[in-house]
Amino acid sequence: MGEKQIDAYVKKWLKEARQRIIRSFDDILYIQTKSDKSDLVTNIDKEIEQFFIRNIRTVFPGHHIIGEEGFGDDLKRLDGTVWLIDPIDGTMNFVHQQRNFMISIGVYEDGVGKYGYIYDVIHDELYYAIKGKGAYFNDRAIAKLREDVAVAEALISINASWLTRNYCMDASRLIQLVKDVRGTRSYGSAALEFAYVATGRLDAYLTMRLSPWDFAAGKIIVEELGGIVTTLKGEPLKLLEKNAVLVSKPGLHKQLLTYLR
Amino acid sequence: MGEKQIDAYVKKWLKEARQRIIRSFDDILYIQTKSDKSDLVTNIDKEIEQFFIRNIRTVFPGHHIIGEEGFGDDLKRLDGTVWLIDPIDGTMNFVHQQRNFMISIGVYEDGVGKYGYIYDVIHDELYYAIKGKGAYFNDRAIAKLREDVAVAEALISINASWLTRNYCMDASRLIQLVKDVRGTRSYGSAALEFAYVATGRLDAYLTMRLSPWDFAAGKIIVEELGGIVTTLKGEPLKLLEKNAVLVSKPGLHKQLLTYLR
Repeated sequence: MGEKQIDAYVKKWLKEARQRIIRSFDDILYIQTKSDKSDLVTNIDKEIEQFFIRNIRTVFPGHHIIGEEGFGDDLKRLDGTVWLIDPIDGTMNFVHQQRNFMISIGVYEDGVGKYGYIYDVIHDELYYAIKGKGAYFNDRAIAKLREDVAVAEALISINASWLTRNYCMDASRLIQLVKDVRGTRSYGSAALEFAYVATGRLDAYLTMRLSPWDFAAGKIIVEELGGIVTTLKGEPLKLLEKNAVLVSKPGLHKQLLTYLR
Repeated sequence: MGEKQIDAYVKKWLKEARQRIIRSFDDILYIQTKSDKSDLVTNIDKEIEQFFIRNIRTVFPGHHIIGEEGFGDDLKRLDGTVWLIDPIDGTMNFVHQQRNFMISIGVYEDGVGKYGYIYDVIHDELYYAIKGKGAYFNDRAIAKLREDVAVAEALISINASWLTRNYCMDASRLIQLVKDVRGTRSYGSAALEFAYVATGRLDAYLTMRLSPWDFAAGKIIVEELGGIVTTLKGEPLKLLEKNAVLVSKPGLHKQLLTYLR
């Protein structure tokens, strides 16, 4: 199972998935509302996850799969080759905007990230990395991330809603951070936000709760460029459970932790 | 000065401006930092404003111009035909991201908005309206905005920083609003945020301080689609000074004002 083979298949499948999604916009979207009002799920989500799973099982029958929509395997460990798939990252954007959603695919071998793909479907923009072989935006190599960004110069992504709640910490710590940075953004797709940190468009991204398929690809891409991906306490992410997540340029990461601890 | 003439010239100039901006990304950006750390101004800003002013003065010598960079006229009144131009709306995005910035052009006749153009330079996406003749995204007509959106279903744009400060109101009112809506976003370009309300991708956008060139085009486009653009108190915007701004789908506007008053 050479590198080029996985890479070539994923890129081919992403383009095919794009055609399916764009076609679906001509149909009426059938939307199920789960109990959580933010948790909108569409038929397309499920269809695209099943599309990837069918293809992976055919071409790579020994691999395991974890998918957001639950059509993959129920894994307790990360032995062997495991694909973590989010067919539509940013479902609320998908439903409300029909843009700003990503397909996110990470491939791990014995728990180590090897291939990461974040695909902006509408703009046909692909961010990807192969561990040790560099990271790319479309076909242009992405430069290593700068070390020397100060908090006062930083553009960070944080959703306004985290300033109003207290899942993980005193919100006043976050409020001080928001006051001290140069600016804040929020795009509503964790995968896009990882991709923006990778390309230097954001200096950092932090959020209170992501599932493994939300960050599996982004972690590989950002780390390939020298960026740091941890929990808000600075600990390694757990790949089989939800995590609070801090993604950052390398020099900035330590500074941000002082706000969050 | 027929409608078609202004419309055709603006579209031609926007495409030419795009070429100039994209070429400039190959040069090293020379960035001046004004006293406010958020107020980054680049050479490109100035060059693009001067490009439009030169063209307008040549083709429409009787018109007046207000531009962000100050190369236009110093107007005290809105008599006659007035162009309000923001050559790069979202300067921080321009500097940090080299994307997510807009060219914004509004043309007013005796204070009434007639032509509005918001151009996403990188993605080559144009949102525009001619008063009474409809609004368009590229060449597709944009549908009238829905009346019946509730706060709990709404995706609104509000920057996290407004929850940490108190320019116009008690921040606790905004915090309650953020808790009650379905979700929040923040893109860092007022023009883009107006364009997203116009296309239904956001249900509302609110912000504490915009200059006339930030909202001149967006107001024309959103109003052409039945959307409401006012101050946070529900009053008409003043076109020659800074305003706090609420942009919303029609039915939602009244509900949002109850949070803000």
